[in-house]
Amino acid sequence: MAEKKRNLKAKIKARKIQPRAHRADGVGKRTASPATLEYIPWSSVALEELNPLLQRQMVWGQQIMLARVLLEKGCIVPEHSHQNEQLTYILEGALKFWIDGREIVVRAGETLSIPSNMPHKAEALADTVDLDVFCPPRSDWINKTDQYLREKK
Amino acid sequence: MAEKKRNLKAKIKARKIQPRAHRADGVGKRTASPATLEYIPWSSVALEELNPLLQRQMVWGQQIMLARVLLEKGCIVPEHSHQNEQLTYILEGALKFWIDGREIVVRAGETLSIPSNMPHKAEALADTVDLDVFCPPRSDWINKTDQYLREKK
Repeated sequence: MAEKKRNLKAKIKARKIQPRAHRADGVGKRTASPATLEYIPWSSVALEELNPLLQRQMVWGQQIMLARVLLEKGCIVPEHSHQNEQLTYILEGALKFWIDGREIVVRAGETLSIPSNMPHKAEALADTVDLDVFCPPRSDWINKTDQYLREKK
Repeated sequence: MAEKKRNLKAKIKARKIQPRAHRADGVGKRTASPATLEYIPWSSVALEELNPLLQRQMVWGQQIMLARVLLEKGCIVPEHSHQNEQLTYILEGALKFWIDGREIVVRAGETLSIPSNMPHKAEALADTVDLDVFCPPRSDWINKTDQYLREKK
């Protein structure tokens, strides 16, 4: 995982790709943002370091956000909730969720559909590559008001 | 690719997992369907064979559908359009799109954000694993009225 991250960082640096501009003007009033076709390689998307164990990239349209979240083993996402519906798909590793009074381990090749406003906490049981889909896009992620993720836990 | 598909089919058979029931009652009136937490391994989801070159699995909530689409090299998805916004992420292989007067090749590690109602056609340039996100869920996929996909092209 650490090596993958270094490789990705090196690749981004080597290509001198600028982080993708956040289209914050469309956020919170998404029906007013233009619907445009966008071709976006992940290698052109800013890799945001939220805390030493947590990195994130994201792309979004009018209604859909897709985020690629890299969590190192031991990373804890504190309990939080959001109006945005969430669908999580683990590509590598495993996340343990505390949600709806249950503990659920979601491993590579598994998904979790989280309804709006359902509080959840998660811990990475291994170095993890997590895809998170949201509807609508997470305005707190776009606007960087997601303080709950920005402290090492 | 062929071996992967056989392995997945064998795994599904070995576990005697029934194809996941389609929750068609929520389709087309999605705001009326209950918002429930769902933990769904892909191995428990029906692998639908649409034509000899095209297979698909899907999970969905109220507003989000995530589909895992397996296309063999040469598979053509005929031109079509839909109200559902689409975000495509290629995990393996490559898809060539004809869209908005352009030809765009989306390769592994790349995404394409397709606005509502924008006609598009695609061809698999290699054996491909494609993730498609839709908002709202594709009722034609759930209800199997997606005839455009069910003929070998």
